[in-house]
Amino acid sequence: MEAELKFIGRIETPYNTIDECPRNVQHDGPECRLILSKEYLDGMLGLSEGQEILILYWFEKVNRDNLRQNSRRTGEYAGVFALRTPHRPNPIGASVTKIEKVEDGAIVVRGLDCLNNTLLIDIKPAMVAESINSDLLS
Amino acid sequence: MEAELKFIGRIETPYNTIDECPRNVQHDGPECRLILSKEYLDGMLGLSEGQEILILYWFEKVNRDNLRQNSRRTGEYAGVFALRTPHRPNPIGASVTKIEKVEDGAIVVRGLDCLNNTLLIDIKPAMVAESINSDLLS
Repeated sequence: MEAELKFIGRIETPYNTIDECPRNVQHDGPECRLILSKEYLDGMLGLSEGQEILILYWFEKVNRDNLRQNSRRTGEYAGVFALRTPHRPNPIGASVTKIEKVEDGAIVVRGLDCLNNTLLIDIKPAMVAESINSDLLS
Repeated sequence: MEAELKFIGRIETPYNTIDECPRNVQHDGPECRLILSKEYLDGMLGLSEGQEILILYWFEKVNRDNLRQNSRRTGEYAGVFALRTPHRPNPIGASVTKIEKVEDGAIVVRGLDCLNNTLLIDIKPAMVAESINSDLLS
């Protein structure tokens, strides 16, 4: 069973190599820009400054078949579903961050953990209380 | 630009019709079971009881082309990216919940907001502080 994603835009970040990328979102990090493709601009109505959003995006050039890996952070050997590694069956990144500014066709946020030109999948209002889990980040 | 998802399993919930489904995750809701397909079981290593996880899943039978909708909750007319509606370009649901139990090939959680047999896309350790946004849920 498979299904097709539609990319709704891309993300501008200051990071052009994996080594420059932070491992997770940094709320005081540099400005990043969600640039929506023209055909999806209508979907932005109602997004506003200060709102917290969940952003989903797609990691390219990853290994989708490696189900057990060593955590980049702790070295621990674990299943991919117990890690935040981008190398996973569905390489979807998920970050919650606050909208700094809504521009014409773009949303400015801070401190995303992905490369410049990362493909954007979805934006939703954030809602669930997530807690920092310090044990098993990749 | 498009990309293919691989379904890693399915979700057992008590809900067989949309009307029965809660609109969002309920932490004191009924037990739900993430059933992983055999070929993805190796990815579970390291997941444990009490851990908070982010679950991504795929809503079927939705309209992926309707970029502006009325919120089911407030009636407000808004862009799809300012709503949590399943009717969106990429109908991916995202919920954070705590692991109640790890079984052989399954993970028990509570109160998901999706139909029985919903397709499972990903499980990650939860990490980002999300806040309840009461304004623009669908």
